[in-house]
Amino acid sequence: MKRISLIGATGSIGVQTCDVIEQHPDLFELEAYAFGTNVDVAEEWINRLRPKYVSAKNIEVLEQLKPRLTYEPLFFIGLEGLIACATAERADVVVTAVVGAVGLEPTLAAIEAGKDIALANKETLVTAGHLVTAAVKKHGVSLLPVDSEHSAIYQCLNGERRDDVSKIILTASGGSFRDKSREELEGVTVAEALAHPNWSMGAKITIDSATMFNKGLEVIEAHWLFDIDYNDIEVVLHRESIIHSMVEFKDAAVMAQLGNPDMRGPILYALSAPKRLEIEGNKRLNLREIGTLHFAEADLTRYPALRLAYEAGRAGGSMPTVLNAANEAAVELFLNGEIAFLDIERIVEQAMETHTVIAEPTLEEILQIDRAVREQIQQGK
Amino acid sequence: MKRISLIGATGSIGVQTCDVIEQHPDLFELEAYAFGTNVDVAEEWINRLRPKYVSAKNIEVLEQLKPRLTYEPLFFIGLEGLIACATAERADVVVTAVVGAVGLEPTLAAIEAGKDIALANKETLVTAGHLVTAAVKKHGVSLLPVDSEHSAIYQCLNGERRDDVSKIILTASGGSFRDKSREELEGVTVAEALAHPNWSMGAKITIDSATMFNKGLEVIEAHWLFDIDYNDIEVVLHRESIIHSMVEFKDAAVMAQLGNPDMRGPILYALSAPKRLEIEGNKRLNLREIGTLHFAEADLTRYPALRLAYEAGRAGGSMPTVLNAANEAAVELFLNGEIAFLDIERIVEQAMETHTVIAEPTLEEILQIDRAVREQIQQGK
Repeated sequence: MKRISLIGATGSIGVQTCDVIEQHPDLFELEAYAFGTNVDVAEEWINRLRPKYVSAKNIEVLEQLKPRLTYEPLFFIGLEGLIACATAERADVVVTAVVGAVGLEPTLAAIEAGKDIALANKETLVTAGHLVTAAVKKHGVSLLPVDSEHSAIYQCLNGERRDDVSKIILTASGGSFRDKSREELEGVTVAEALAHPNWSMGAKITIDSATMFNKGLEVIEAHWLFDIDYNDIEVVLHRESIIHSMVEFKDAAVMAQLGNPDMRGPILYALSAPKRLEIEGNKRLNLREIGTLHFAEADLTRYPALRLAYEAGRAGGSMPTVLNAANEAAVELFLNGEIAFLDIERIVEQAMETHTVIAEPTLEEILQIDRAVREQIQQGK
Repeated sequence: MKRISLIGATGSIGVQTCDVIEQHPDLFELEAYAFGTNVDVAEEWINRLRPKYVSAKNIEVLEQLKPRLTYEPLFFIGLEGLIACATAERADVVVTAVVGAVGLEPTLAAIEAGKDIALANKETLVTAGHLVTAAVKKHGVSLLPVDSEHSAIYQCLNGERRDDVSKIILTASGGSFRDKSREELEGVTVAEALAHPNWSMGAKITIDSATMFNKGLEVIEAHWLFDIDYNDIEVVLHRESIIHSMVEFKDAAVMAQLGNPDMRGPILYALSAPKRLEIEGNKRLNLREIGTLHFAEADLTRYPALRLAYEAGRAGGSMPTVLNAANEAAVELFLNGEIAFLDIERIVEQAMETHTVIAEPTLEEILQIDRAVREQIQQGK
């Protein structure tokens, strides 16, 4: 029996994690459930899976939830609640599915408490990769990716020797605007940006897919997860999202992981690896039906966000923190209708240009830079 | 240092095996070299790699070769020579690259002598899979595939649990006639059949690709190599031959191995696995350049050879021996211009229809059936 703490439980990944846990009651048990404000979703899954710890964003949300529960768990709120759930005594593994840099502190706390991490929060590795990977090493826990791309890479590395890897190839669908030119991106709406062709996901990641910041964050995430040089991480456009990513080895063999887009695959694999388990309702891949897979260059002129991510990654130190914080703040402004779509990458580039890199920032420095960048962007909108 | 015996040394796989051995003199040494009649190729590689044992088809060939060698190895001829090379005392692994059922006896002798097998001769497993796999088990040797498809599957199974496999998916280029209808196959010539779109190979396997018997033999080979039911082996047309084959697992994840068509990859992997080694001149895969991969159904009406292979495999016992022997005899007649292309599958089907299956044939019975089927077809042409 594996006991799971779920941090960021009412989002897309959170709900699918609950689904996967419920499908395997003999293997998994939900120990802790931390969410933000979505009381309806929280009520349903908490009553179904009966975790011992429950945490909400604040006391108001918690008060709404309490009368709707059929039993009495231990209640928590805020960042302290996230950390309490992430370090819940009996938890074996923490699924970190919160969105954004807010995942950093609970993830580090979980690692320090000796929990394995199933990481669906890429911003954690982007903003503090050196701290997270050092903590993982120090505490001897495992850090398994839940992103479909990184899960694919992890699966491709199964049974292989790290020294034999020559290159990681991340596939990118291109997001909702992949068929638009730079000119056509002027004036696109929030609704258009939220219409992802292949994946049904949260708002932040869907916008990140449209800008290609999502793939940029994944490049930095891959760098930390697989300890690989940025020169050996390649992005290729693949509009069908059927090949989830690939690894090239030094004998020129390329291993790939394929499947229909369904995040329950990577979620379950992160919880069960190296074992594989059945997923109810998971549609089998049928390449004869799909017929054609396309691949094209991920052009850094068409996708400046990808260029910026490589630049931030190569600059290292505190620069990826700036890239991530600026992007989060800009996406929020865009979703609120306060800036245009193309402003997102412009704002991120400006934030990076004005930043002086700290080579090995501490957690305090990272949190401080993260805050400062967000405030600056919110004020400058 | 791994010492290698090479059986069937002057064919396409044989020459590429020599190339791979020569590229890694610190890891591999050629111990024995058995060939048929191609003295020019044999002279070159024997002088370069200086094996201790050399075997030719017959004494005439050997006498031509002898004066052209720069040193004096131990000489052998015929089937005894093949077996002497396959069981050479110091050899660690035997690469069986002869074409056709003639590979069976030396392969079994090598297994009984405790040698690991790198199997490029699929007819061995097709014609006597139960004997070969039983011998492999009994003598505790390893049997690694050199076929690109089976090597791909082997690589996809790396680090996985056998119980988690749900399906093996073999890709098929469709061969030289893939764009022709059944009607258009009437009257095609030997030269047309020999023009394979993706792979440069020997005549037998190129014809087998055009008829799809090659894929059929591979289905039976996969059944034995990976101990998998015929219902769980699927063939999908994939004209680019970039995905070399795939494995579907029970969580619906599909692992695939990709690369440019280059047999040195599978050859080297069979010799070095699980380690991977660099191959000089091996072109890296560039999916952005390739752009598109196609998949389509392998229609059993368009490709009766594939249907016959599934039927023979499911019938089991001595039936695959009949399929294989009839196909070898018919391909020979076709290459000699004595029958038409479509006669090949007709002849195989007739041979299967008139055969009464022996459930667990002995080696003697297999050899006897193999001979009888060939004679019958040669007489009936």
